[in-house]
Amino acid sequence: MNERITLAHGAGGIQTSQLIGGLFEKYLGGPHFTKDDAAVLPSPQGQLAMSTDGFIVSPAFFPGGNVGKLSICGTVNDLACMGAKPLYLTCSFIIEEGFLYDDLERVVAAMAETVNRVGCEIVAGDTKVAGKGQADGVFITTTGVGALTPGAAPAGSRARPGDAVLVTGDVGRHGCTILLARNSFGIDADVTSDCAPLWAPVRDMLAVTKDIHVIRDATRGGVGTVLYEVAGESQVGIRLRRADVPVKDEVRGVTGMLGLDPLYLACEGCMVVICPQEKVPAVLEALRRHPETKDAAQIGTVTEEQKGRVVVETEVGGETLLSRPTGELLPRIC
Amino acid sequence: MNERITLAHGAGGIQTSQLIGGLFEKYLGGPHFTKDDAAVLPSPQGQLAMSTDGFIVSPAFFPGGNVGKLSICGTVNDLACMGAKPLYLTCSFIIEEGFLYDDLERVVAAMAETVNRVGCEIVAGDTKVAGKGQADGVFITTTGVGALTPGAAPAGSRARPGDAVLVTGDVGRHGCTILLARNSFGIDADVTSDCAPLWAPVRDMLAVTKDIHVIRDATRGGVGTVLYEVAGESQVGIRLRRADVPVKDEVRGVTGMLGLDPLYLACEGCMVVICPQEKVPAVLEALRRHPETKDAAQIGTVTEEQKGRVVVETEVGGETLLSRPTGELLPRIC
Repeated sequence: MNERITLAHGAGGIQTSQLIGGLFEKYLGGPHFTKDDAAVLPSPQGQLAMSTDGFIVSPAFFPGGNVGKLSICGTVNDLACMGAKPLYLTCSFIIEEGFLYDDLERVVAAMAETVNRVGCEIVAGDTKVAGKGQADGVFITTTGVGALTPGAAPAGSRARPGDAVLVTGDVGRHGCTILLARNSFGIDADVTSDCAPLWAPVRDMLAVTKDIHVIRDATRGGVGTVLYEVAGESQVGIRLRRADVPVKDEVRGVTGMLGLDPLYLACEGCMVVICPQEKVPAVLEALRRHPETKDAAQIGTVTEEQKGRVVVETEVGGETLLSRPTGELLPRIC
Repeated sequence: MNERITLAHGAGGIQTSQLIGGLFEKYLGGPHFTKDDAAVLPSPQGQLAMSTDGFIVSPAFFPGGNVGKLSICGTVNDLACMGAKPLYLTCSFIIEEGFLYDDLERVVAAMAETVNRVGCEIVAGDTKVAGKGQADGVFITTTGVGALTPGAAPAGSRARPGDAVLVTGDVGRHGCTILLARNSFGIDADVTSDCAPLWAPVRDMLAVTKDIHVIRDATRGGVGTVLYEVAGESQVGIRLRRADVPVKDEVRGVTGMLGLDPLYLACEGCMVVICPQEKVPAVLEALRRHPETKDAAQIGTVTEEQKGRVVVETEVGGETLLSRPTGELLPRIC
């Protein structure tokens, strides 16, 4: 089918109803999915977490995923970073006139598959169509509500000297994938985005211990930016061992050629976890049970000295300050 | 200040932090506003309502408001239509590179003012910057969570023969405003958008009686589209008296010249309310206490016959079927 999205699909009339019924409801419909103005939902016990994220990645389709899968993973992972079980998601589409209906269907199907994998549901949506040249393909904003896990309170300000710094998988893969998909460097590397929803590994980690000080997903800005944020918010130093940072060979190859640091490339299925050193074996064991976090590893420790800074022990035994990037790392990566 | 938004403001690094701290936190910060991945919130008692809406109106500034005010009103009104008190809002910005910082500040200031007027709060946000020409100015998606009013259950399927059909104010003003702001018809009319948050009037109406069958805001597609939706969902007919539909003189003038029906022009501060006929005096009295709904009026009744249809008694005593529009009414109106 070669049908394209038209302005009429966004104008609120019959074509909008057909798009909602024929596509969004078909894939995303569930017990609480609403065609009314708002979904009606049971209020969870205890405290809520709420998070929103806009996704404008270019290109919309990339090895390992598409903007639809990414839009669910991003919001699910933001909730998971607070130790919150994702419950309800909304999605808002801004679609460029002329976008292929079949491509939109692939995006929505990927959203449905990811939502089902996580075990949460999409309860409400919205569609707007912008004129040709007034948006780029499809933009998706997802918002999620989750239920906090009682007893868990991870926060960027809770890193303590002596804590261990872990990552849940190899770093920089999403950023590297988008870089290659966007630019023709003449590099032929088989890199796939790490884009994945991480609630299940986080849930199992919190089942092992609630004493997790920080969980933060390393999206825009990558692991390096997260570590600087935490060092600042917790007023601690962070000491990394470069050799312990898991990086896939193909990512190492590409970033080496281009002079980039994988620590500053976005991940979409990798989190930084900071916890007491004695919890590390149990935490790593819980994480490694899941395919998307099987390469979890400790990469450093939190220190009393060098407050606000991230120090790297290099592969050759030296020591250097991780440089802070300014400006655009790599725009439109998520 | 002539500063412009750059790609670096959206890349997740230092400039992003400065934008969040210097603008979003300054205007929108409140007790639960998060710079973490997700806000932590007390869970309300009872049932939740959740709604999302994307706003891509062109132009972003128009008489009576801007895309920021509109983005809060839209989501607040969607919650109000379910009888839900708006509690928590999130906002996601997609900004075109080169957008003026001062204009963004005007947008965010209007959001803050509207949120304060409603008495809800913005708890989380996100910012992405798209390259020049890859978005048009600023797009905003807001998502809201509200607490349902116990005992109230308005829904599009609950209209019953004999019910009264009301509007909370004059119709078609937002659509007419955008039409004039976008096109140079050589018409010089002083039309202002009706864009307003309507939770307070809805709250007071529900305090008078919980027996409200339908509340629906007449945004894209206008009052006419809402009436057809309700006629279909409730399997009833709707009979309007054209002479009772409140339309401002300036809107009547413009639509008359252009051959448009105000019933199909968007409102952003006007709802359709359907309730038992005997409740009408109390409902109108409650609504008319608020400046934004002071022109509330009954415009028709729900009928057993003509199921799924909207019949109009014309000013000259005739009777006609309200025609259903297809295609684009007026794109990018919200």
